[in-house]
Amino acid sequence: MQWTKVLGLGLGAAALLGLGIILGHFAIPKKSNSPAPSISAPQDLDLEILETVMGQLDAHRIRENLRELSREPHLASSPRDEDLVQLLLQRWKDPESGLDSAEAFTYEVLLSFPSQEQPNVVDIVGPTGDIIHSCHRTEENVTGEQGGADVIQPHAAYAPSGTPQAVNAAKHGVAGVLVYTDPADINDGLSSPSETFPNSWYLPPSGVERGSYYKYFGDPLTPYLPATPSSFRLDLANVSGFPPIPTQPIGFQDARDLLCNLNGTLAPATWQGALGCHYRLGPGFRPDGNFSADSQVNVSVYNLLELRNSSNVLGIIHGAVEPDRYVLYGNHRDSWVHGAVDPSSGTAVLLELSRVLGTLLKKGTWRPRRSIVFASWGAEEFGLIGSTEFTEEFFNKLQERTVAYINVDIAVFANATLRVQGTPPVQSVVFSATKEIRSPGPGDLSIYDNWIRYFNRSSPVYGLVPSLGSLGAGSDYAPFIHFLGISSMDIAYTYDQSKTSARIYPTYHTAFDTFDYVDKFLDPGFSSHQAVARTAGSIILRLSDSFFLPLKVSDYSETLRSFLQAAQQDLGALLEQHSISLGPLVTAVEKFEAEAAALGQRISTLQKGSPDPLQVRMLNDQLMLLERSFLNPRAFPEERYYSHVLWAARTGSVATFPGLSNACSRAMDTASGSEAWAEVQRQLSIVVTALEGAAATLRPVADL
Amino acid sequence: MQWTKVLGLGLGAAALLGLGIILGHFAIPKKSNSPAPSISAPQDLDLEILETVMGQLDAHRIRENLRELSREPHLASSPRDEDLVQLLLQRWKDPESGLDSAEAFTYEVLLSFPSQEQPNVVDIVGPTGDIIHSCHRTEENVTGEQGGADVIQPHAAYAPSGTPQAVNAAKHGVAGVLVYTDPADINDGLSSPSETFPNSWYLPPSGVERGSYYKYFGDPLTPYLPATPSSFRLDLANVSGFPPIPTQPIGFQDARDLLCNLNGTLAPATWQGALGCHYRLGPGFRPDGNFSADSQVNVSVYNLLELRNSSNVLGIIHGAVEPDRYVLYGNHRDSWVHGAVDPSSGTAVLLELSRVLGTLLKKGTWRPRRSIVFASWGAEEFGLIGSTEFTEEFFNKLQERTVAYINVDIAVFANATLRVQGTPPVQSVVFSATKEIRSPGPGDLSIYDNWIRYFNRSSPVYGLVPSLGSLGAGSDYAPFIHFLGISSMDIAYTYDQSKTSARIYPTYHTAFDTFDYVDKFLDPGFSSHQAVARTAGSIILRLSDSFFLPLKVSDYSETLRSFLQAAQQDLGALLEQHSISLGPLVTAVEKFEAEAAALGQRISTLQKGSPDPLQVRMLNDQLMLLERSFLNPRAFPEERYYSHVLWAARTGSVATFPGLSNACSRAMDTASGSEAWAEVQRQLSIVVTALEGAAATLRPVADL
Repeated sequence: MQWTKVLGLGLGAAALLGLGIILGHFAIPKKSNSPAPSISAPQDLDLEILETVMGQLDAHRIRENLRELSREPHLASSPRDEDLVQLLLQRWKDPESGLDSAEAFTYEVLLSFPSQEQPNVVDIVGPTGDIIHSCHRTEENVTGEQGGADVIQPHAAYAPSGTPQAVNAAKHGVAGVLVYTDPADINDGLSSPSETFPNSWYLPPSGVERGSYYKYFGDPLTPYLPATPSSFRLDLANVSGFPPIPTQPIGFQDARDLLCNLNGTLAPATWQGALGCHYRLGPGFRPDGNFSADSQVNVSVYNLLELRNSSNVLGIIHGAVEPDRYVLYGNHRDSWVHGAVDPSSGTAVLLELSRVLGTLLKKGTWRPRRSIVFASWGAEEFGLIGSTEFTEEFFNKLQERTVAYINVDIAVFANATLRVQGTPPVQSVVFSATKEIRSPGPGDLSIYDNWIRYFNRSSPVYGLVPSLGSLGAGSDYAPFIHFLGISSMDIAYTYDQSKTSARIYPTYHTAFDTFDYVDKFLDPGFSSHQAVARTAGSIILRLSDSFFLPLKVSDYSETLRSFLQAAQQDLGALLEQHSISLGPLVTAVEKFEAEAAALGQRISTLQKGSPDPLQVRMLNDQLMLLERSFLNPRAFPEERYYSHVLWAARTGSVATFPGLSNACSRAMDTASGSEAWAEVQRQLSIVVTALEGAAATLRPVADL
Repeated sequence: MQWTKVLGLGLGAAALLGLGIILGHFAIPKKSNSPAPSISAPQDLDLEILETVMGQLDAHRIRENLRELSREPHLASSPRDEDLVQLLLQRWKDPESGLDSAEAFTYEVLLSFPSQEQPNVVDIVGPTGDIIHSCHRTEENVTGEQGGADVIQPHAAYAPSGTPQAVNAAKHGVAGVLVYTDPADINDGLSSPSETFPNSWYLPPSGVERGSYYKYFGDPLTPYLPATPSSFRLDLANVSGFPPIPTQPIGFQDARDLLCNLNGTLAPATWQGALGCHYRLGPGFRPDGNFSADSQVNVSVYNLLELRNSSNVLGIIHGAVEPDRYVLYGNHRDSWVHGAVDPSSGTAVLLELSRVLGTLLKKGTWRPRRSIVFASWGAEEFGLIGSTEFTEEFFNKLQERTVAYINVDIAVFANATLRVQGTPPVQSVVFSATKEIRSPGPGDLSIYDNWIRYFNRSSPVYGLVPSLGSLGAGSDYAPFIHFLGISSMDIAYTYDQSKTSARIYPTYHTAFDTFDYVDKFLDPGFSSHQAVARTAGSIILRLSDSFFLPLKVSDYSETLRSFLQAAQQDLGALLEQHSISLGPLVTAVEKFEAEAAALGQRISTLQKGSPDPLQVRMLNDQLMLLERSFLNPRAFPEERYYSHVLWAARTGSVATFPGLSNACSRAMDTASGSEAWAEVQRQLSIVVTALEGAAATLRPVADL
């Protein structure tokens, strides 16, 4: 899981205490009216196979996968990362439980590492240059796993090297940045060693959150081009998106030493945290503190940029009937340190899923209607690099043929509930799958019924339903949804937000994210891992085996309607002042709604008969390709890869179409007739054109 | 046909004299081994239907269509243009011979007209302001058709209004432009009334070539957006691509008065023409000429920009088996004046084709496997506006579903030979069609055998074959190939280049392009029109009815190989000097060749069996979508709509990949390591990525 996604995730709080080992079990009701297989019936979802897969997804095996995957740190491009490439290839080529074929695809990408010779340093120095205090350069070796040579020193990847003297430099603008994670944000306020790992799931005082500080995603030197050895590479001077100034992360124990001794006015209330002092803004240290007032903070960053080989591993099960339709399932493989949670919990699930499906395949019991592609991405932590390079290399092939992309990165943040992010067409298949799987918690709830207790919304169409989050750019789904316009989803188990306010699981991106951490605190018994595997497995089978694709395009209508209402309520008056009418947008949304509903009707009617496979293929293509019609590579050319006019990053405050929202927020303070207001009108036309174009793709195919 | 395409067409010379009325007749050999239709055999091309269509395409009816279409001037958005919209709708909705449905789609587009109140004026004035000489404001009313109120005054569409005084202003840079067509370029040197229309096909002295002087195509105010009434429109001040200075076209009789009296040094030999004097460069008039040396040329341009409604008319025949695959056939409807040749010769063919196919349809005799869409585009003469707006409005639907676009604009330039421009995948279907149709000339040749005598090349694969030209941006195919990446072709009958050096047929874009002109000089008997109708009809049937799509993607290999060889021979040494290797390009071309050949093999094998329709659909999708994989909307962002990395406009002199050629020509004089050389490397990577991506789409669909 990549750094940038931690902003605005809105995760639920985890049920942390009293979690026993819960052995969930699945329940797919057998339908008495399921048609007997016949030679003439088209291949469709087979509920018996589905049941078999649910039954064979084994919590213990996921645990053993995780133990192996997280045994050693496996930073992108490290020898252990390469070992795991081989492990994946071996599993996926296994004659008993492997896939039809598997292959590693290697790119040469620009990564950023701290120097091994010269560690990054944060010191407080006195006026004569003597070091008064040094921040820790490594995390404390609490469990014996934090001390190895392959535990990368915490650093801010892609931050430039340099030695700013922060206190003085502040007078002239910020010269360097120190980043830390406050116990208030990650530890529910707790900070003492006795309250933290290995005594609880909370982050120890020395823990430091690593991360990539690159603004975009993909290999920084080869935007829009696959990072093959011969590819054109930008000159470093022309790369945009790297932090401008040296940056270094530190643990909260070091942050306390710095922050609690600062001088100056009190920081705003929302800036205060749980370090046990009042946070001040500086500049300089207070005279009555641990450091003399004329002390300075010296930060020395020695990060190095290096071209490294990083591999994706791809494996495929060939579709029996429609091999040119791909259900794509992926997770990254690289971690910052041991990465038991991030990403190995997801990879452990991936391996168990491929084992169960591969075994059925090799036994000759089953072959899906459509192809299933499994992916293990490289170098995600540095900025979704492996997945992005993959989409750049195979842009057309993927865009033409991919039914959906399913991402399981961190499979389990916590044990309380399912959490799904995705675009509207995937909602129905997620609901169908989760209604049929028993939740791992106590009681006799389905995953769906448990989920709705934690995340829900009132749908004008369905009433109370679990609410899906929207996809940002926090993991490898980003290039698929934003760059290729492929319907995507991200699946995990997560917190009870009423029980913790942690921004994310506390050891995120630290050397404390280890197997024992998962085994003892996050998911003892691995029943939540199993629940995620079953959910993902059921979704994969439904997408790859169903005669009619289980993508419900009419579920986009609710999103469009809510965006439209926000535009009308929060921007309508303003737009009217500037003579901009929302009328065409209203018409476009209505047209989309009508066409999507009519297509749904035609599908329902057809499902009652025995339609021709070619006829169903045509309808399925309409469903599969709808998401593509929201792409416009010319809508936001300055936002690299972001081409989806509904899900591009929104900086404006109004929760409406992002192009409109952002353009309005920029035009707000300009006069009518300004270029900024023209851009509002242009963005409005872009979204109207996309919606009208989308509606046109949903009409009967022989209509003009 | 649009103005810009007249550059570099390389048309053959017309056989002008002694053309009798030749009644060609078709010959499709009946194959004795054609399979008997059976309920289980998949619908495939039916040779009997093909023969019927060839037989029913009637030269006389095409002639009558042309008479009606060219009866009155039908400038874009004029009342007569609107009448023709109704005529098309009526024909396409005819219960006996119409299509399944037809509809007009109207856009509000920016056109440019001369003012009716203040005609554009070109005068020579003496030093006291008295008018010494006035250029003609209208063409001479030679046949009674040049005098009507709806004959638009010749103008340079989109040239700005203004009154430059050219002679003086020239000292400070060019202030205005006069354009004329030299008899050397259009009339094989002839210029007297007795030698020109109506006494021959040559342009009379008063003829003025109209045209659009807009640099791009599509509605100038709504780039990338359909010009619906509510669409965002650029402020006029922000429109780029209009001529910067007043411009006016004049006839060669007026040009003679100006040019033959100019003073100054002799113009270069290649600038000399057939006006019967030595052309000089000015400035000013020579003292011994008709005008005093202190005379000036006053040009007053009063062009007006107006938002006007312009319609496309679309008609469709629903496919019986794959209605979501479209074979798209189109021509524009609007003319500059009567436009008998341009575009009505094409529209006359279009109407005859739709009548014959519509009649079979309404009788219940035939329905194609795939859908056939007929289009009559509006406002092409102003810059391919109707077709471009159509592609903007229905971008995704068209890109996902269109098998090919067939354009027949000017159906007959002259009577000598077929001439086809197109991308490589269409070559084979054009060859198949033309081998089976009798050429209209004397003798017993097929169109193919006649064609190869005029335009041919030596193919490394096939030996001597007719040569297809490449598609520029001269007619409505431009948005389809460049913006959407749809395999496209343009079909016409044209000259024997050994018999005339005319740049294009002489009355092009003048008021002399009338029905009688066609009937007497261009195609008496209309057998060439019929030949074009048969060629287009056969291509439409083959594309819409064949079980396996007759698009041969391996024919791209020859193009790629020739581009590669040009790069190696003409740029290799230079690139090496700048440490740029063509190795990756060689590999990519080889990979493409191998994959294209292998796909061809798989299709051949499959054709011998009785393949499943779904299996064939998958292969057909690979064929149909190949062209899309050469699109990259980020390759040349400054070249509006041009996204095809193989066919974008080439300004560099080396006949290789246009991005590479252009970047090299810009980098040529810069030092190694310059931004310009980096751009060469980037363009090389863009084309390598496109070729590798294309090859990936041709591989077996379940390969990784």
